[in-house]
Amino acid sequence: MLDALFRPRSVAIVGASNNPLSIGHIVMQNLLDHDFKGPIYPVNPKSPYIKSFKAYASVSEIPGEVDLVNISIKNTIVPYVLEDCGKKGVKFAIVHTAGFKEVGEEGLALEKQIVEIAHKYGMRIYGPNSQGIQNSDPEVSVYANFTFVPMSPGNISIVAQSGGVGETLKLHLYNIGKGIRMYSSFGNEADVSMNEIIDYYGQDEETKVIMVHIETLKDPAGFLEVASRVTPKKPILALKTGRTSEGAVAVASHTGSLMEQDTLTDAIFEKSGVLRFHSQEDMIDAAIGFSNQPVPKGDKVVIVTNTGGPAIIAVDEAMSAGLKLAKLSPKTKKILSELVFKEAIISNPVDVVATAGPEQYGGTVEALLDDPNIDSVLLVFVTAPFVDCEGIARKLGELGKTSKKPIVCQVMTIEKWENVIRLIRDGGVPVYDFAETAARTLSAMTEYGKVSARKAPTYKKYKSDKKKAKSIVKKYKGKGKFIPQDDVFDLLSCYGIPAVKTVRITKESELKNAAKRIGFPCVLKVDAETIVHKSDAGGVALNLKSEASLLTAFKKMAKKFQKDKPAFILQEYMKGGKEVIVGIMGNEGLAPTMMFGLGGVFVETMKDVMFRLAPLSSESAYDMIESIKGYPVLKGVRGEKSVDIDKLAEILIRLSQLGSDLAEIGEMDINPILAFEKGKGAVVVDARIKIV
Amino acid sequence: MLDALFRPRSVAIVGASNNPLSIGHIVMQNLLDHDFKGPIYPVNPKSPYIKSFKAYASVSEIPGEVDLVNISIKNTIVPYVLEDCGKKGVKFAIVHTAGFKEVGEEGLALEKQIVEIAHKYGMRIYGPNSQGIQNSDPEVSVYANFTFVPMSPGNISIVAQSGGVGETLKLHLYNIGKGIRMYSSFGNEADVSMNEIIDYYGQDEETKVIMVHIETLKDPAGFLEVASRVTPKKPILALKTGRTSEGAVAVASHTGSLMEQDTLTDAIFEKSGVLRFHSQEDMIDAAIGFSNQPVPKGDKVVIVTNTGGPAIIAVDEAMSAGLKLAKLSPKTKKILSELVFKEAIISNPVDVVATAGPEQYGGTVEALLDDPNIDSVLLVFVTAPFVDCEGIARKLGELGKTSKKPIVCQVMTIEKWENVIRLIRDGGVPVYDFAETAARTLSAMTEYGKVSARKAPTYKKYKSDKKKAKSIVKKYKGKGKFIPQDDVFDLLSCYGIPAVKTVRITKESELKNAAKRIGFPCVLKVDAETIVHKSDAGGVALNLKSEASLLTAFKKMAKKFQKDKPAFILQEYMKGGKEVIVGIMGNEGLAPTMMFGLGGVFVETMKDVMFRLAPLSSESAYDMIESIKGYPVLKGVRGEKSVDIDKLAEILIRLSQLGSDLAEIGEMDINPILAFEKGKGAVVVDARIKIV
Repeated sequence: MLDALFRPRSVAIVGASNNPLSIGHIVMQNLLDHDFKGPIYPVNPKSPYIKSFKAYASVSEIPGEVDLVNISIKNTIVPYVLEDCGKKGVKFAIVHTAGFKEVGEEGLALEKQIVEIAHKYGMRIYGPNSQGIQNSDPEVSVYANFTFVPMSPGNISIVAQSGGVGETLKLHLYNIGKGIRMYSSFGNEADVSMNEIIDYYGQDEETKVIMVHIETLKDPAGFLEVASRVTPKKPILALKTGRTSEGAVAVASHTGSLMEQDTLTDAIFEKSGVLRFHSQEDMIDAAIGFSNQPVPKGDKVVIVTNTGGPAIIAVDEAMSAGLKLAKLSPKTKKILSELVFKEAIISNPVDVVATAGPEQYGGTVEALLDDPNIDSVLLVFVTAPFVDCEGIARKLGELGKTSKKPIVCQVMTIEKWENVIRLIRDGGVPVYDFAETAARTLSAMTEYGKVSARKAPTYKKYKSDKKKAKSIVKKYKGKGKFIPQDDVFDLLSCYGIPAVKTVRITKESELKNAAKRIGFPCVLKVDAETIVHKSDAGGVALNLKSEASLLTAFKKMAKKFQKDKPAFILQEYMKGGKEVIVGIMGNEGLAPTMMFGLGGVFVETMKDVMFRLAPLSSESAYDMIESIKGYPVLKGVRGEKSVDIDKLAEILIRLSQLGSDLAEIGEMDINPILAFEKGKGAVVVDARIKIV
Repeated sequence: MLDALFRPRSVAIVGASNNPLSIGHIVMQNLLDHDFKGPIYPVNPKSPYIKSFKAYASVSEIPGEVDLVNISIKNTIVPYVLEDCGKKGVKFAIVHTAGFKEVGEEGLALEKQIVEIAHKYGMRIYGPNSQGIQNSDPEVSVYANFTFVPMSPGNISIVAQSGGVGETLKLHLYNIGKGIRMYSSFGNEADVSMNEIIDYYGQDEETKVIMVHIETLKDPAGFLEVASRVTPKKPILALKTGRTSEGAVAVASHTGSLMEQDTLTDAIFEKSGVLRFHSQEDMIDAAIGFSNQPVPKGDKVVIVTNTGGPAIIAVDEAMSAGLKLAKLSPKTKKILSELVFKEAIISNPVDVVATAGPEQYGGTVEALLDDPNIDSVLLVFVTAPFVDCEGIARKLGELGKTSKKPIVCQVMTIEKWENVIRLIRDGGVPVYDFAETAARTLSAMTEYGKVSARKAPTYKKYKSDKKKAKSIVKKYKGKGKFIPQDDVFDLLSCYGIPAVKTVRITKESELKNAAKRIGFPCVLKVDAETIVHKSDAGGVALNLKSEASLLTAFKKMAKKFQKDKPAFILQEYMKGGKEVIVGIMGNEGLAPTMMFGLGGVFVETMKDVMFRLAPLSSESAYDMIESIKGYPVLKGVRGEKSVDIDKLAEILIRLSQLGSDLAEIGEMDINPILAFEKGKGAVVVDARIKIV
């Protein structure tokens, strides 16, 4: 419960001073400027008064109760101050001071120490190395932060790992006159966590949309849990930086954390329904849309314009962003044809032409909002000097107030018509400078519409021999090595995953018997820890049709890999089928990431693969398969039959079950799986597993 | 020569009136508001005075010479006015009036008529259905346009097919206090063309960058020619709308033109060095960068910040946009280590930390500008309240004034430090709200750096039998049909393009002789105009090893396709090699578009293909091959040898020569070409040609 942090009844400032360039002074000034609704207690042993407030020599000397303390003194003194705070019964301490985990070993020790002190007294630490928090709720109006962007009430809450990014987000909203609800940049996250903050925002009724900036997920499992709980109620928009390898290096150097896979972030966001953005601007623009507009029920957009060109840009951008152009109902067409001027184009986009007044432009939008074929409305509006632009804006604002469908707008105008923008915004309709922005925002809102309408996923639970699987894995735990092939195939069989008939032998004398069990034609493969890419190394002989050719291949391979002390695998030789690949990547403290793609060297080069977090629901399994670009190849092109998609989905789910049960699996490559015609199943031909 | 249009010595306004909502009135007001440097003559037969100016009953009554006339009267009266203008010796007539080509047949006839009238007198028509022109040159200061965005001098010139888009571009510049040079939105392009305007901007010394908005290229060949001439001198940034199929439909309905392939636009832009943008905002932001900054010599960027998070965003965006992080030289590192605070991070990004003052931040940028490893500089700057922010800004502005390398900047600040932004901008350094924008701008500038450094391409001219080729094509001209296979192979041979040995027969009795010429194993294919996808239709029999199996296949095929009255093709059966495909798409009035990609059903599904405009230079041919995602497959993966890339490039060039010579080729699919190991060449196995 973070009420005493975001809704403190009183704030003390340790490090408050009369030096206007000090953090303590700035925090105090911010609290005063924003009219904090509780007592402020500057703490400074050297000055009796700070900004005309009586200053206290220590927190313990403060007469009243203290919910929150802001601390901006030298790092080594922080522990002493915290002891004092603890004794006083302070609930939260925002530590602005840097010089902790981010500077290395010594700082990390100090950081652990301050958390211990705090917890001893039931106090929580926010930070250290943190910017602070803000809450614009007029009942509280707390700006316990040393930044400079003025705060006004709104319904967008922000939590940013980087204060600089948080500041950029606040700035943009400030520049267009839009308020925020709560703000938080939490620094080193030694105690109060980002996940707790998101959870708190999730429960805040006045917060309509949450913006998150993440550099590194300290607790991915916790994030998944919290975000999954919040997104059905309100959208979480996220910017995760370090998406390029160079960016990830910069994050690691900035936060002192390990490098993260960007695919894992995507998988976590997908599973928890978080909308991911790749630019600050796109995220804020979307947040502005969410902040006042209802969520669209579907992806059918109508574009209305009084000037041609920008509407085409809106079409291009909306289509690229995955929206569809709505088809107007006959009824709507009829209404419009009686309403608009004869030069108007009644299509989608609807061009009401520049001479349209309030009746034509406003009436058109009104009719479109009533059309059941339409889910959302994008307006392009230039203030033509020869029509009643304010009248149009007033009408659009009125429609915005009552509309059950989202409306977004590009307005082209200058100061002369400043009322126009105000009137539209007063109706809750976001006004953007560019049609592209309006289109991208609608696309994000439509995406969230799908998230909020998601049904509970179906998790099939296939029978498995988990006990046996665990005992196999146990043998290799902690070794960080690829395990022998027969154990790999045994693991697959524990989870009912069909594999090609396989026998492992270690010496020539076993060859004949093995061949009997497999039959001809067969395949011979080398099996050694040291040989990772068997095929490239010449460790695979395909389509051996007789005992003689098998023996020749065996002798050749045994000689070639003598120094690897290999075992050998005999397998049935499978003809036909299409190759697909599945990967499992272990994630510490979290279910593994699953990968699916087409196999074969050509397609592997294209990196046409999908990632999802295990365990896979039926819906996700099918979605993974259907989302790769090469899906038409699996469905069959040029008259071919489809492969057995159902069986592939089942194998994916079974593998995700295997991966979820066995946390020791560092990585698993199933390459290839041969998928046969619909109804004829699919089998794993080769697989390797690394146990960590 | 468009001087009398963009630098008129006098302007007459036909349709000027005292009604403030009329176009004529607004144009006149705009001319007055912007202090046009020549006489203004309102023309109105009904009012003796317009806005206190003496009004003339007709253009011919005007006492002085008239360079330019703005016309905004009823469409049917325009011809009479133009006769009058012609007699008067007017040089350009801007026709704002709509109701011409865009409304259908009748309008088109009227449009032709007004151009004829104008040309009879040596006069030029601008429009009709046009917004107008502007030129901010203080010697002229002409705003012959009815829009509302105020004009101030600058060095960015804009030409926009859509007035709404042009207005959006002007608005953004106006909002950040940036001027323009010339502006033009040309309407129906009945006479004065977009290409002429671009050419004119290209010759204007004060224009440093040109922004173009295109809905449809009326004269693609002319655009290619003009743009190729301009881009070595100054950048052309282009936004071509209708890039999605829905957008293309909207363009067609908006402009009354045919739908265009977006790939052709890309190919034309690539060949002429035009930078393509997909959003108005990206294009303007880049134009602002170009407007004051030198062009980078390479792609190595350094990022400097005084706050961590946004710099990581800059890294992500810069890397995604194709830039590289510069490695600081040892000398630079040494200078920085003596300059910055100990908490600073001397890497890339360089984090000078928030406490850095003018000496640290400014000195760092100065040292980096001197580093030969660095081509461009991206700054992230938050106005930390405890340092001399104006001092930093002053220093950055000074560096901007003299730097030979481009500097772009994200500044986070509010009104309180408004001088900061001004001081930086005064040095020519563009200031953006977001790090992403700064990074994308640098990427566009780097891209243009490559364009302006392009060497003259090498055009190999292979010997060909053009005369024979023309005679083959002539037989089918105007029929719009696929031609017989032996003619296809003859055409290939005219251009020295290697193809698999092929014989065409029409009846069974020729089979034996043909087989003798081809040898075994061979391939039998059906050849009929009605059968487009031979393989899918069962019209291909591969690897026929004997006369007997050939005969069986023949009989089966002859029966199957009886009603198609087919011929048959016998070919050598080729083993091994990798499949690639080449396509040629004819473009009216322009050389054809060439396509290159990997073959095979899997890869075709991925649409991993490149397009370039013919004729191909050596450089483009190799670039096409190397730019597909699947290129590693051709170069050889997992120890395989490379295919014969040189031969593929040669075949591409020869095919582009064939396509350029024979304008009658509507489309040609060469699918597949088998490419063998390096040194072993490549051969066309199958091809089809449609003659139009």
